[in-house]
Amino acid sequence: MSMPYVTVKMLEGRTEDQKRALVEKVTAAVSETTGAPSEKIAVFIEEMSKNHYAVNGKRLSDQ
Amino acid sequence: MSMPYVTVKMLEGRTEDQKRALVEKVTAAVSETTGAPSEKIAVFIEEMSKNHYAVNGKRLSDQ
Amino acid sequence: MSMPYVTVKMLEGRTEDQKRALVEKVTAAVSETTGAPSEKIAVFIEEMSKNHYAVNGKRLSDQ
Amino acid sequence: MSMPYVTVKMLEGRTEDQKRALVEKVTAAVSETTGAPSEKIAVFIEEMSKNHYAVNGKRLSDQ
Amino acid sequence: MSMPYVTVKMLEGRTEDQKRALVEKVTAAVSETTGAPSEKIAVFIEEMSKNHYAVNGKRLSDQ
Amino acid sequence: MSMPYVTVKMLEGRTEDQKRALVEKVTAAVSETTGAPSEKIAVFIEEMSKNHYAVNGKRLSDQ
Repeated sequence: MSMPYVTVKMLEGRTEDQKRALVEKVTAAVSETTGAPSEKIAVFIEEMSKNHYAVNGKRLSDQ
Repeated sequence: MSMPYVTVKMLEGRTEDQKRALVEKVTAAVSETTGAPSEKIAVFIEEMSKNHYAVNGKRLSDQ
Repeated sequence: MSMPYVTVKMLEGRTEDQKRALVEKVTAAVSETTGAPSEKIAVFIEEMSKNHYAVNGKRLSDQ
Repeated sequence: MSMPYVTVKMLEGRTEDQKRALVEKVTAAVSETTGAPSEKIAVFIEEMSKNHYAVNGKRLSDQ
Repeated sequence: MSMPYVTVKMLEGRTEDQKRALVEKVTAAVSETTGAPSEKIAVFIEEMSKNHYAVNGKRLSDQ
Repeated sequence: MSMPYVTVKMLEGRTEDQKRALVEKVTAAVSETTGAPSEKIAVFIEEMSKNHYAVNGKRLSDQ
């Protein structure tokens, strides 16, 4: 079964090349440190838009 | 209050008919096995795109 | 790879037998309606305690 | 570091003004009650569409 | 049906009084700004331990 | 503000040393590939117990 499951939540705007490298490197990091084989590791990317993310009570789109 | 809460995360591409059947059958399964009345059970569908999901360090869109 | 991923969030207190039946029936319901083979479907159970869940501004433990 | 993290999951359709007020008031409420400074509090908005949310085995889009 | 759903993820250690006030004030803030009636709003508290949360590559328990 | 946010969901049982290395290496991988500075990256570890995780309709604790 696939495991661990990794979710990376970030602002939208990264390129496909960045995302491709991201899942590759993160998978390697998780495999190396947990001992889980790479083929069991799943990575999800979740993108946020600037009007749906706030810090200090203010959305990024309002700053 | 609504409860349990069920989230189904899957690749995009299922039809509306499949999704309609999915929430109906899952709700029935949860109700039958937990004893919660159907009207208290909420189901969320979350869709992933192929460039945001990877196994073995490779996104589905790159395989 | 495992997919879809199903998360069932519910109040703590169900028996092991209920949980065993829950994952079995939910998996069958998802497989039947999405066409995904059962061995690709993962189910997670997440339990909430009554002091960490509120409706109408009141926690269950306070009602 | 930012903390607490607050996620508000709701049906799509709120205006930008409503979302702006939402993150402001929620941040204030969390800061006041937990003692965390506002600049450490992050708020995420997640929107659901009516065909991806069901109660009682029926999606909102089917009711 | 209950909605919106609010999740507050924070370090463990808040008192029951703080949590009670937290869900009450957050519910009021969400109701006031989204127009949802309080009895439809659900709030979940999720606690993290210091060895399961890291910023800058270092867990809180290691700082 | 902290961002990206990374969540690693895995079976319980890893040692503190493994978790310490995990958050360090994952943070480095995310920083290198997204360009986000390490001090903006948060990592959460979520552990599952074997009776709350199932594949193929069967919990790990039942296999």
